Amino acid sequence: MAGRRDWTRETLAAGVRAGDRRALARAITLVENGDPLAYEVVRDLYPETGHAHAIGLTGPPGVGKSSLLAALIRLVRGQDETVGVISVDPSSPFTQGALLGDRIRLTEHFLDPDVFIRSMGTRGHLGGLAETTLQSLLVLDAARKDLVFLETVGTGQSEVGVLSIADTVVLALMPGSGDSIQALKAGIMEIPDVIAINKMDHPLAKTMLNEVRQVLSLGPHEGWVPPIVLTEAVRGEGIESLWEKISEHRAWLEADGELERRRRSNLAQEVFQVASTRARRHLEHAVRDDLELRRLLDEVQARKLDPLTAVREILERVFHMGERDGAGH
Amino acid sequence: MAGRRDWTRETLAAGVRAGDRRALARAITLVENGDPLAYEVVRDLYPETGHAHAIGLTGPPGVGKSSLLAALIRLVRGQDETVGVISVDPSSPFTQGALLGDRIRLTEHFLDPDVFIRSMGTRGHLGGLAETTLQSLLVLDAARKDLVFLETVGTGQSEVGVLSIADTVVLALMPGSGDSIQALKAGIMEIPDVIAINKMDHPLAKTMLNEVRQVLSLGPHEGWVPPIVLTEAVRGEGIESLWEKISEHRAWLEADGELERRRRSNLAQEVFQVASTRARRHLEHAVRDDLELRRLLDEVQARKLDPLTAVREILERVFHMGERDGAGH
Repeated sequence: MAGRRDWTRETLAAGVRAGDRRALARAITLVENGDPLAYEVVRDLYPETGHAHAIGLTGPPGVGKSSLLAALIRLVRGQDETVGVISVDPSSPFTQGALLGDRIRLTEHFLDPDVFIRSMGTRGHLGGLAETTLQSLLVLDAARKDLVFLETVGTGQSEVGVLSIADTVVLALMPGSGDSIQALKAGIMEIPDVIAINKMDHPLAKTMLNEVRQVLSLGPHEGWVPPIVLTEAVRGEGIESLWEKISEHRAWLEADGELERRRRSNLAQEVFQVASTRARRHLEHAVRDDLELRRLLDEVQARKLDPLTAVREILERVFHMGERDGAGH
Repeated sequence: MAGRRDWTRETLAAGVRAGDRRALARAITLVENGDPLAYEVVRDLYPETGHAHAIGLTGPPGVGKSSLLAALIRLVRGQDETVGVISVDPSSPFTQGALLGDRIRLTEHFLDPDVFIRSMGTRGHLGGLAETTLQSLLVLDAARKDLVFLETVGTGQSEVGVLSIADTVVLALMPGSGDSIQALKAGIMEIPDVIAINKMDHPLAKTMLNEVRQVLSLGPHEGWVPPIVLTEAVRGEGIESLWEKISEHRAWLEADGELERRRRSNLAQEVFQVASTRARRHLEHAVRDDLELRRLLDEVQARKLDPLTAVREILERVFHMGERDGAGH
């Protein structure tokens, strides 16, 4: 364990640059711990980033995202591309849960020196999920990974928020993903760049395909139209087509300056997201630690002080916000 | 339209207290507009609130929540209970979309003077969804509605966040809600207080019932165990059982001080949520309006300034937050 203390800002940055596994593992652990050293290293490395193609992979639990990921990695490794994976599992209270459950499907890649895989739970790291994911992506990007996959479990807002930094977002569905189809149809879930319908052997796969087609036909017909690919990840079927579509999306992004535009918007969004999460945490700590603020909540509970007045007093005290700031009136 | 200007703080509060429909409609519109008059009226009325049983109704789109709601309202109106409904539809850019789509199922109740129904889109009102829902609930509570239903479309975090103020949360599912079952199983979606499986005539209804039972068997077995009810809302079947379970939950809450505890925690959560949303909006405006902050984002885009340093500068400038506040290190 003493070896852990050996990294300095310079050696850690150099190790990451060289793609050294120990350096990568250490840097991401420091990111998760919100360690100042991680902050400094990422700051040093940031000018060298922008190389990696960041691919988000999302979908409801159980559709086989990990199998898809394992199959995609197998394919791109055959083309000699280097790979990083950040797997976000909000149901797991643990970080580095890489040996449990779905992650088992990725084990075949654990020994490949050009594949770096890291699982992250939503609790247990201090920096907030958006921040940790962003910083880890930058670390893997600086390590010259050609592709960085960001995998999330679930399609809720917090998970999809993590994907806002991706260049290409892949949504995985399977027969039975009725809720996701409805959510796409109702405009609650955003339309992804590529859709994979996994478990294509299922008798209802064609029905699902038609449903997805119908949903997409309601969307915009200009610009990029999201392709739908049928896959059977466990047997590796459809994976080449899926990868082709992902690559086509990347080529489309690069062709007319769209990549630049999307990254500008993604980065701005990400900075805002991280700032907002930090402000929220600061507020949380303040309300927890400040006796005066706790007294306000007691008065709300006793119906002596209305909630909005309590909100105003809290914002004034914590953020020096005046009555008109952010109030909408 | 001239009549709209007649309301004063006193007459509006008196109108709400008396349950006057025009006063209720006006007060909630003012809430949606973030009008200072709404804030004052709710502040005046707050000490009189706490009477209503707030019932949240959520579930993926398409399961028939509006039909369930219409059937429940029919039932409780037969028992002479007065009803308020706040229907949150995040896919609708319009407020008061009460004549469109699903809302059509509630039309039979539109002329009942003891039922007040309001639909809200997520855009088009300034106060943020949690704030608008909370304030509207307080208005309906002060109008002595016995029951206030909070209906949301979708089961994402933003929708379910709205329900954090409810005393009882009902999750509606149907055969085909596979994603929701998986999300419950994975611990991504919180276990509700009562589960309704609608469209009970569907051949896969029993399968769904077994799946839900299995998920619940993994949860805690002490305290309240969420009952599962099969319904067919359009024909009104199972609605009495559903209502019985909702009432039993309320009775359970009241029996051992749990209602008090839950409301304390809900209110604290809600105040924090509203404060956090306001802080976020303040940040959004600041980043949009402040040239210096926009310049920071340009530097991030040009890879000259790393994202976290930009975040720190933004938080320092907007919220006077120091490096150690909310940074986790």
